[in-house]
Amino acid sequence: MSEFTQLETRLDRPGLIPRQLQPENLESPLNTLFSWQTPTDLFYLRNHLPYPTIDMDTWNLQIDGEVAGSKSYSYDDLYNMPHVSKFVTIECSGNKRGLLEPPALGEQWNIGAIGNAKWTGVPLSYLLDQFEISALAREVVFKGCDYGSRPDMPGQFHFERSLPLDSNLLDECIIALWMNDEPLPYKHGYPARLIVPGWYGMAHVKWLNKLTFTQDKFRGPFQAIDYVYIDNEDDFSKAVPVTEIKVNSIITWPAKGEVIKPGVHTIRGIAWAGKARITEVEISLDNGISWSNARLTSPEHSSYTWTFWEYTWTVSFPGHYFLTVRAKDSFGDVQPKQARWNAKGYANNSHHRVEVTVPGIPAPSLQ
Amino acid sequence: MSEFTQLETRLDRPGLIPRQLQPENLESPLNTLFSWQTPTDLFYLRNHLPYPTIDMDTWNLQIDGEVAGSKSYSYDDLYNMPHVSKFVTIECSGNKRGLLEPPALGEQWNIGAIGNAKWTGVPLSYLLDQFEISALAREVVFKGCDYGSRPDMPGQFHFERSLPLDSNLLDECIIALWMNDEPLPYKHGYPARLIVPGWYGMAHVKWLNKLTFTQDKFRGPFQAIDYVYIDNEDDFSKAVPVTEIKVNSIITWPAKGEVIKPGVHTIRGIAWAGKARITEVEISLDNGISWSNARLTSPEHSSYTWTFWEYTWTVSFPGHYFLTVRAKDSFGDVQPKQARWNAKGYANNSHHRVEVTVPGIPAPSLQ
Repeated sequence: MSEFTQLETRLDRPGLIPRQLQPENLESPLNTLFSWQTPTDLFYLRNHLPYPTIDMDTWNLQIDGEVAGSKSYSYDDLYNMPHVSKFVTIECSGNKRGLLEPPALGEQWNIGAIGNAKWTGVPLSYLLDQFEISALAREVVFKGCDYGSRPDMPGQFHFERSLPLDSNLLDECIIALWMNDEPLPYKHGYPARLIVPGWYGMAHVKWLNKLTFTQDKFRGPFQAIDYVYIDNEDDFSKAVPVTEIKVNSIITWPAKGEVIKPGVHTIRGIAWAGKARITEVEISLDNGISWSNARLTSPEHSSYTWTFWEYTWTVSFPGHYFLTVRAKDSFGDVQPKQARWNAKGYANNSHHRVEVTVPGIPAPSLQ
Repeated sequence: MSEFTQLETRLDRPGLIPRQLQPENLESPLNTLFSWQTPTDLFYLRNHLPYPTIDMDTWNLQIDGEVAGSKSYSYDDLYNMPHVSKFVTIECSGNKRGLLEPPALGEQWNIGAIGNAKWTGVPLSYLLDQFEISALAREVVFKGCDYGSRPDMPGQFHFERSLPLDSNLLDECIIALWMNDEPLPYKHGYPARLIVPGWYGMAHVKWLNKLTFTQDKFRGPFQAIDYVYIDNEDDFSKAVPVTEIKVNSIITWPAKGEVIKPGVHTIRGIAWAGKARITEVEISLDNGISWSNARLTSPEHSSYTWTFWEYTWTVSFPGHYFLTVRAKDSFGDVQPKQARWNAKGYANNSHHRVEVTVPGIPAPSLQ
């Protein structure tokens, strides 16, 4: 019946999950976490400031500071330079904050502030090779077009972050103009976004329009106040900057609280570790007493991308089961049972635990 | 620049949030909770069984059991009967289960397993008036086309629920063919869905195809095992059925963990109470020590629909604030500080509390 078919397709599929409405902070829904390459329209969005207005007639990428001669590049300039493509998993450092106990301030992300996409653009090293950089320069500051006020201080701020002048790191970076083989979408930083493989999401500056070489250590608020590990709010005396992604893993099926039948089930999930490759994923069915190896099933287990895994579970007896996952990486790092708690709730890589129930006897009240 | 405009509109807006993939259980996202009438494509979906196949060439609504002469109605028959429209807020009885402490089994709904829509269709009383019902009949059983297995017992089951033969209740019910002035979407129960104003969602049987008048109390698993208040799993000796929606309210802005500036803010939220009207919403800014009245701002404060409210908050001092909301209804019921915990996690109407932070002094490390 034609009416039926028409109605069937009318409802939206799952979409991004709002965690904060202004600025817009949207998390990828669970179904997205079953796809190795994250669809662009379901890739999480993390904003600190209102969306900027980009005027493409005047936009350019300026390079200045401790270099011999500053310079500006138009979109066409970048478009006509050599390009590289890289799959990079980007994770918000606040991912899994909502699972912390005690809770930490900030957007209460569950497990979906992460995605894996193909980024294409100009190698940062190609751009930097055009310049004679002063021997005094220690950092590059990357400035986004987005700006606005912060709740904790007066004034207007651009989103800006620096990286150390370390060629191993900078050689990996890309000024991305494309995401998943299409022009970078506006909400993901069009016209140009910095990709810093292996680092948490805050480093991947969107709406990029300026690179500045500096002698001084950059102290902007998105670097010195946000994105630091601190034990207590307002005590920055021992603040340690948030940088590379820590080894981590999650169970994507079953979901927390799920009730499943006795029988054979495939537990599924993801593991990732920034630059390191995932070498081992282990599952515990008894709340961490004993562990078994899961199978790594990703199409590729390369650096900078997540790895999918699965585990065949034959469950015969009714009861409550605590499924727990932990991962190990090629640098020898192992996911901790309990990540060190920090006041801003970054980098929660505690073992991921999901409680499921296998019901037993039918309720007597039914006869 | 035309390319820019094109890109800007490409990303999906927020969508439904998957809580369980099979059967499909999707929650309304936060942005939906700012609209008095819930858009159909963002209305939450709660399924117990796989989606049924509906063959409209053979589908009909059968009425049998303790009546003089059973009968079947085609879609056209129902289409040509008198219709009524009613705005009804439907809430899943598991809404807010994810906020329970200790956790309870089942889909971990946050605050979005609720929606308010306009339902149009045949008054159930009009249909029942066509029949001479036996004096022995005590209940009507409503059967859906959806069927499948359950994790807790062998066999296949249709989704079926009964209502008592109480004319006050049945007179309110609608066999809905339309939702928000459009034909009922397939995923919301096309061709016909029972609407039971004031009751939790499980009573609103989708894909309805049979009404049976019975002498016996109906004991199907979706009535006798699910949707009962019990203190301990598997002890059904004192089970009390889940029926009418309890007085409840939530804060929709700010979100949990939000960091906001000193100044004047509008706290926003929703309150609802099934058949009763919301008469008062109170806000506490000090974790329940003192309370102030919020303004009720809905276009209508009718029975069966939710009420929107807002509260102007002038905050001058930095600190952590526990914003708490509670509602009172026209039956005199007041939302409890802590709802009685039950093993299946139904009807969580505890005060809703959101912790927010107003930051103070800029961090000294910034100078």
